[in-house]
Amino acid sequence: MTDSAVATSLTDKLERAKVAARALATTATGVKDAGLEAIARAVETGAARILPANELDLADGRENGLSAGLQDRLRLDEARLAGLADAVRQVIALPDPVGAVLRGSTLPNGVQLSQVRVPFGVVGAIYEARPNVTIDIAALALKSGNAVVLRGGSAAENTNRVLVELLQEALEGVGIPGDAVQTIDEFGREGATQLMQARGYVDVLIPRGSAQLIDTVVRESKVPVIETGAGVVHLFLDESADEAMAVEIAVNAKVQRPSVCNALETLLVDTTSAARLLPPVLSALRDQGVTLHADERTRAIFPDAVPATDDDWSTEHMSLDLNVAVVDDLDAALAHIREHSTHHTESIVTNDLGRAERFLAEVDSAVVMVNASTRFTDGGEFGFGAEVGISTQKLHARGPMGLPELTSTKWLVRGAGQTRR
Amino acid sequence: MTDSAVATSLTDKLERAKVAARALATTATGVKDAGLEAIARAVETGAARILPANELDLADGRENGLSAGLQDRLRLDEARLAGLADAVRQVIALPDPVGAVLRGSTLPNGVQLSQVRVPFGVVGAIYEARPNVTIDIAALALKSGNAVVLRGGSAAENTNRVLVELLQEALEGVGIPGDAVQTIDEFGREGATQLMQARGYVDVLIPRGSAQLIDTVVRESKVPVIETGAGVVHLFLDESADEAMAVEIAVNAKVQRPSVCNALETLLVDTTSAARLLPPVLSALRDQGVTLHADERTRAIFPDAVPATDDDWSTEHMSLDLNVAVVDDLDAALAHIREHSTHHTESIVTNDLGRAERFLAEVDSAVVMVNASTRFTDGGEFGFGAEVGISTQKLHARGPMGLPELTSTKWLVRGAGQTRR
Repeated sequence: MTDSAVATSLTDKLERAKVAARALATTATGVKDAGLEAIARAVETGAARILPANELDLADGRENGLSAGLQDRLRLDEARLAGLADAVRQVIALPDPVGAVLRGSTLPNGVQLSQVRVPFGVVGAIYEARPNVTIDIAALALKSGNAVVLRGGSAAENTNRVLVELLQEALEGVGIPGDAVQTIDEFGREGATQLMQARGYVDVLIPRGSAQLIDTVVRESKVPVIETGAGVVHLFLDESADEAMAVEIAVNAKVQRPSVCNALETLLVDTTSAARLLPPVLSALRDQGVTLHADERTRAIFPDAVPATDDDWSTEHMSLDLNVAVVDDLDAALAHIREHSTHHTESIVTNDLGRAERFLAEVDSAVVMVNASTRFTDGGEFGFGAEVGISTQKLHARGPMGLPELTSTKWLVRGAGQTRR
Repeated sequence: MTDSAVATSLTDKLERAKVAARALATTATGVKDAGLEAIARAVETGAARILPANELDLADGRENGLSAGLQDRLRLDEARLAGLADAVRQVIALPDPVGAVLRGSTLPNGVQLSQVRVPFGVVGAIYEARPNVTIDIAALALKSGNAVVLRGGSAAENTNRVLVELLQEALEGVGIPGDAVQTIDEFGREGATQLMQARGYVDVLIPRGSAQLIDTVVRESKVPVIETGAGVVHLFLDESADEAMAVEIAVNAKVQRPSVCNALETLLVDTTSAARLLPPVLSALRDQGVTLHADERTRAIFPDAVPATDDDWSTEHMSLDLNVAVVDDLDAALAHIREHSTHHTESIVTNDLGRAERFLAEVDSAVVMVNASTRFTDGGEFGFGAEVGISTQKLHARGPMGLPELTSTKWLVRGAGQTRR
């Protein structure tokens, strides 16, 4: 298709998404939940349709030299489909945010104000390889009353097409327009470009995937974006840090699940306590298979580390690699964090109240912790019950996002003929 | 200056704004209020410095053929300076949003979570002629703990330069860095362009001014924007509308202050009641000097109206001009509003409960009203005490914005060594 043919055809899809969004905005929770239950059933009984499509994508992946790790993220099987269905049922169990009254008042003239949650309308999602995101995002969008337009990675195109067909059939079975979930994968890269330009059609765009993907969307989009960013996450061991706590938190933050955004990437240690803390902490990390990328002061105390490069300090390794630096004091730690943090999560281990409070006040990140593992930055751990993503921007939502973060608000004003003086 | 020289010099200013923002974020309310009081005093006693600069701008304006209306908006005098000082003191009286705890919980493992309001950091403002915006935006940003970088219109460049000098001196007098308020007017258009690209320096950009200015900023900015949009505001007279109420609300909404965004632009009347309501409503409007731009069905009933053009329905007149159309029913009114509304404010006059609730539920605007004048969409009227602007976007803030809408949030996590299982 030519670019202008893509634009016309895509606009047609977006128009239909908008119409579906209007219907969804006033659809009762019970009906939305019935649609989600139909989706869960379609996924758990849909192996015969889904797995052959997934096999096609996997075959393409092998041919195109897709890495073993990405092939694994792309692969679906009966067990993973059951897991996906479970995830949809967890969304059913969450409270519907739409219609919640956030605040209100009666003005001196008797006019009644109330601010209520309403769906955004049409949510766009641009993401990469993992087909589970297709089901996840659709379920979260539907529960919060939004239509969703999906642009998945080309690597999962066959799988996603079948999943979207199943989603549409399930919704239509309960009387929700199938247009509430649509894929624009068939338009390729040009489709993604058009989606980012679709002011007036798409109310918010959520990119999920690599730092590069997110950066491209944030820079190119003319539609408002919620940035779910990378995590160059720091842990600072203050001079007063308890040794056992330092070991436990550092190991948990780095090792428990190194491939996620709340995993630790850089350990900073106050020079006063470096000789006391570095040997036990770094030995424990090394024993868990962590490769240490360290500055000179660290290597003077703990030689079993590779020299850190300039790039390491700003790198989200997402692997069993950890940067380690000795810093002069809390101010130096704060300065290092300011320079290299992606404003996701930072934590301090300390027994000093004043420095704990300074760290909480002065670190400018979505989540700032004292004496806790950075792995707690998570919608599930925070009790939100769903993982929309973790926002690293300051507008609209910051930190773990639950269903309410997929809504906007509207003011309702009820009068009896009042006019302004 | 060349574009790259502008970029270097502007980056230097933005760096200093960032440093000032860090200081402001932890500045006590009392100190911020003292700074604001110093600003109020500097403005009310600063005529000798401000008015000559303003006279230079006015002379330029006359030379460049600036319209009488714009010249009036540009003009400052002793009375207007006193008004500006009053506005600053109103901001002092508002509660400081920073540090408010929005929600929190203690997790089963004892980890304590709290979500607190924090300043954005650096707020950018791009606006046009009126120099009072310089003081307004600076006062609101400072009270909410933000540094602010201002790009005013070139028409007010001399006035704004002196105002920013006064602001900086006032802040420094109470120990707040003067860099917390800066102008980049000296960089001209290229400065505005760079400001829109300044990711990592500017946390949020607020355009204020014409629809064209706002549209340019929304489309070109790579920094998150809060859109304070135009109002093509609708009033629908339902078949059950009370005649006296219809007259009063229509006249108040259109006539009380026609030049603002919450003033009425289009009146829709149900065909069933057109013969009953149009003559008294339109006569009253005409008697107030309103020019009626009407469709054929309206002119058949009330001939004293000019034919509406296709463009009229999407035009924010901001003058004593009003579009009028007869529509078949509520559905047709909703369809007209969907097509032409800027999602600012719409109101219905009705005595029918079902249609009132449908209107509230189905109109997708920041503020939706029943039996009230659209002029109530205003931060002051809503009890927010300050006019940051009225957001017509769905992300972050929608409708009248108070000081809390100039803040972000941050999660504070306090543990005692907890790690994730």
